[in-house]
Amino acid sequence: MAIRTVVWGENIHERTNAVVAQVYPRGMHTTIADALNTDAAISASTATLEQEEHGLPQSRLDETDVLLWWGHARRTRRGLPTRSSSGSPRRVWQGMGLIVLHSGHHSKIFKRLMGTPANLHWREAGERERLWVVNPGHPIAKGLPRYFELENEEMYGEPFSVPEPLETVFVSWFQGGEIFRSGLTYRRGAGNIFYFRPGHETYPTYHDKTVGVVLRNAVHWAFNAERHEELMKAPNTPVDKAIEKIVERGAKLAKHPG
Amino acid sequence: MAIRTVVWGENIHERTNAVVAQVYPRGMHTTIADALNTDAAISASTATLEQEEHGLPQSRLDETDVLLWWGHARRTRRGLPTRSSSGSPRRVWQGMGLIVLHSGHHSKIFKRLMGTPANLHWREAGERERLWVVNPGHPIAKGLPRYFELENEEMYGEPFSVPEPLETVFVSWFQGGEIFRSGLTYRRGAGNIFYFRPGHETYPTYHDKTVGVVLRNAVHWAFNAERHEELMKAPNTPVDKAIEKIVERGAKLAKHPG
Amino acid sequence: MAIRTVVWGENIHERTNAVVAQVYPRGMHTTIADALNTDAAISASTATLEQEEHGLPQSRLDETDVLLWWGHARRTRRGLPTRSSSGSPRRVWQGMGLIVLHSGHHSKIFKRLMGTPANLHWREAGERERLWVVNPGHPIAKGLPRYFELENEEMYGEPFSVPEPLETVFVSWFQGGEIFRSGLTYRRGAGNIFYFRPGHETYPTYHDKTVGVVLRNAVHWAFNAERHEELMKAPNTPVDKAIEKIVERGAKLAKHPG
Amino acid sequence: MAIRTVVWGENIHERTNAVVAQVYPRGMHTTIADALNTDAAISASTATLEQEEHGLPQSRLDETDVLLWWGHARRTRRGLPTRSSSGSPRRVWQGMGLIVLHSGHHSKIFKRLMGTPANLHWREAGERERLWVVNPGHPIAKGLPRYFELENEEMYGEPFSVPEPLETVFVSWFQGGEIFRSGLTYRRGAGNIFYFRPGHETYPTYHDKTVGVVLRNAVHWAFNAERHEELMKAPNTPVDKAIEKIVERGAKLAKHPG
Repeated sequence: MAIRTVVWGENIHERTNAVVAQVYPRGMHTTIADALNTDAAISASTATLEQEEHGLPQSRLDETDVLLWWGHARRTRRGLPTRSSSGSPRRVWQGMGLIVLHSGHHSKIFKRLMGTPANLHWREAGERERLWVVNPGHPIAKGLPRYFELENEEMYGEPFSVPEPLETVFVSWFQGGEIFRSGLTYRRGAGNIFYFRPGHETYPTYHDKTVGVVLRNAVHWAFNAERHEELMKAPNTPVDKAIEKIVERGAKLAKHPG
Repeated sequence: MAIRTVVWGENIHERTNAVVAQVYPRGMHTTIADALNTDAAISASTATLEQEEHGLPQSRLDETDVLLWWGHARRTRRGLPTRSSSGSPRRVWQGMGLIVLHSGHHSKIFKRLMGTPANLHWREAGERERLWVVNPGHPIAKGLPRYFELENEEMYGEPFSVPEPLETVFVSWFQGGEIFRSGLTYRRGAGNIFYFRPGHETYPTYHDKTVGVVLRNAVHWAFNAERHEELMKAPNTPVDKAIEKIVERGAKLAKHPG
Repeated sequence: MAIRTVVWGENIHERTNAVVAQVYPRGMHTTIADALNTDAAISASTATLEQEEHGLPQSRLDETDVLLWWGHARRTRRGLPTRSSSGSPRRVWQGMGLIVLHSGHHSKIFKRLMGTPANLHWREAGERERLWVVNPGHPIAKGLPRYFELENEEMYGEPFSVPEPLETVFVSWFQGGEIFRSGLTYRRGAGNIFYFRPGHETYPTYHDKTVGVVLRNAVHWAFNAERHEELMKAPNTPVDKAIEKIVERGAKLAKHPG
Repeated sequence: MAIRTVVWGENIHERTNAVVAQVYPRGMHTTIADALNTDAAISASTATLEQEEHGLPQSRLDETDVLLWWGHARRTRRGLPTRSSSGSPRRVWQGMGLIVLHSGHHSKIFKRLMGTPANLHWREAGERERLWVVNPGHPIAKGLPRYFELENEEMYGEPFSVPEPLETVFVSWFQGGEIFRSGLTYRRGAGNIFYFRPGHETYPTYHDKTVGVVLRNAVHWAFNAERHEELMKAPNTPVDKAIEKIVERGAKLAKHPG
């Protein structure tokens, strides 16, 4: 069965900004989903902010293997309550893969999973970005050249306040003098997380073929066929069910609060 | 100057449970602070839940280099709003060290910094715990034997749903058949975090001399003399202030939302 | 195409020790290969020490995707020169997966790739080992229960002097009181490496069904379809071929030694 | 007591190349040692290739807490047998800190400790290098600005075939379009290792004040007051000395080969 993938897009600037509408007439989410669907092993659909429950009701998340997330506007960041299904990390902890794109670094879901502010420096000047593969054996780098370029991109500069990743896959060079760790992997609970830096909405980044390779590799890497609901609980193992026989000793709180 | 250290204790069971009161007549927090203060390079004071602002107003956190956290009761976990200074990760991100003890794994501050549920299995049977040093060169293991034992402890069993740590320092063997990664290091922003498993309130764990060595080592390891407030912001670097001279190109959102 | 897998076995004790011969009449390597070949996506063959070039001439390594390594006797460790193809890490660096089993921790190839002595404590008493899954979302833990037991195993105890792994997948509990990090992942160059602790030759460990699941998962995880020969070189990028145009400046060694 | 530090320099180009001799008339090793000795807590001396036993007899290594290593010429790389004390990783495993500088990435000691070829791309054009602090809370980044520049440096480009580090501290931007992970931390056995990229011999890098801050921070970070000789052995724990009482069971090899 193909990997059930949902591309979530804010879909605001595509409708309110003429430049963005021209680059992504059908929305960034659709362009990304199209790039994923060129791989028969991936079945990608889309969801957007304006849909009911932001297009991500619990029932849909339950049927999602990998979620890609693109959001930028302030109201998106502030608007999605962490108690809503779309803003909750629970499905990630249970094993849903999450690929956070570009300005999604400031989404609630990403900051919640990182445990850090995920801040950075930025500049919108359409400068050149060159992504270097620093981990050529990583599954997400499969089939890539030593580096690839995006002629126009927004700059993100370090320090990027995220935890030390499991592995760093890409590091970006920017024309204006900055560098940025632009491909980082994490696991939270049973869920694999990949942060991928490029993707400013006024540039045709998601039409780029190499970017498509990265995204398809990332979906395969993030996919976890299992669902680990048991990680949501902190069960007691009673003394009489201990694996090795033991006798209860010492003092005990009358009612253990767990 | 000595490392300004605060030991936060819930201080509930010490006052409501006769067993705990007998083991820690002055409160667990005081016993821990006393163990730290045997090191002249550490200056440890205490704070407790019942104090105003839980003993941790912003003004005090501002003067704290390393915070140790012990909490267990349900109301402690639920009671501390993340918006309160005591439940906020901001000081950790800025560089305050945090040492989370035992049942503190379920505190809001720890779960918030880990980005995971931090669940585990548990059993209160007073069984033997043996902590093995798996990383003998780590600063927190300085001066320790190959292993040390606590004759009576609560059992915590894997899986412990926390991120892969920077380094694993201790792994515990339990009489009833479980193991647990009981000493784990992390950095979030500029703040060093150490999780140390032992410390159930009905046993004399914090009177143990080897535990004292671990805690003092951990305070030294977690200490960061600098304060990184700049990590709280995501500043723009304007085109005309780029380090390397660049010319703005390409399309741009009229009002950049950051 | 199936993953081309070679199981290398020392095949000494199986022929010289009556106990081992009874447990593994066709050799441990054959038992392991049989367990792998129950998965149609894996094509496993065997190689042994007594064969020419230890069964691993360069031509065969060139056609191998994943190598499993079991060795124990002193002469195996000392006998394989690192300059021989079988003892060389080059194929691993280029992307061949390597699964090191049990006493293979002291093999030249493993120590060479770790950069550490890979020492540990040990005891041969046929005691119970219980392997806990500490990383349930890891691909190598797919389909496993929370823990599994081997009723008779050799004990390995910490400290295990290996580098901090990418991820810890299993931790073992031993009846005699020790623990051991018994499933560890690494990448060296483009090659994925998994160390798996169990497998003393006098016990039927490789007949165990759960062990078979682990080994098959590990082969899938370690497989890298690409071959990265370029990592074997340190090429010069001449000034006139710099990506961004630069002018040579400053002093220069006449003949650059690289 | 001050940290006993030895700066090992190849000291070849300083004597054979007029340019290098002018930049470092007393040798790079002396310049580096001088920079370290501005810190009263560090006591740095020097050693060079032409000295007996390369200036690093076992007796001296035994009294060394932290070793800095600068080497470039082919004969240095090839000349130091790993069996010589100066080329051996044993003191590092036991706890001696090691700071590998610039072209030392190709030294036997570094490659031996990494378990990888440590290859990279390079260009000697005196271009601008800008080192970004990506981990501002790390002890090695203490007191540093967000970035610092070296107006003329040799370029090193990715992929740098070393293992994923414990932490990445610096990433370099190069004028010619490359990036490089230029500050990486590791631990091997009980020894802390820091790789620091800059330092081509024709440029005044080790006269730079910020580089001096980095090197002093690195010495403090790498220092381990303990000596772990026990990690050099793999001892047997006999059944009758097991911590938890066990009875020997199952089959056993007559003469255990360890």
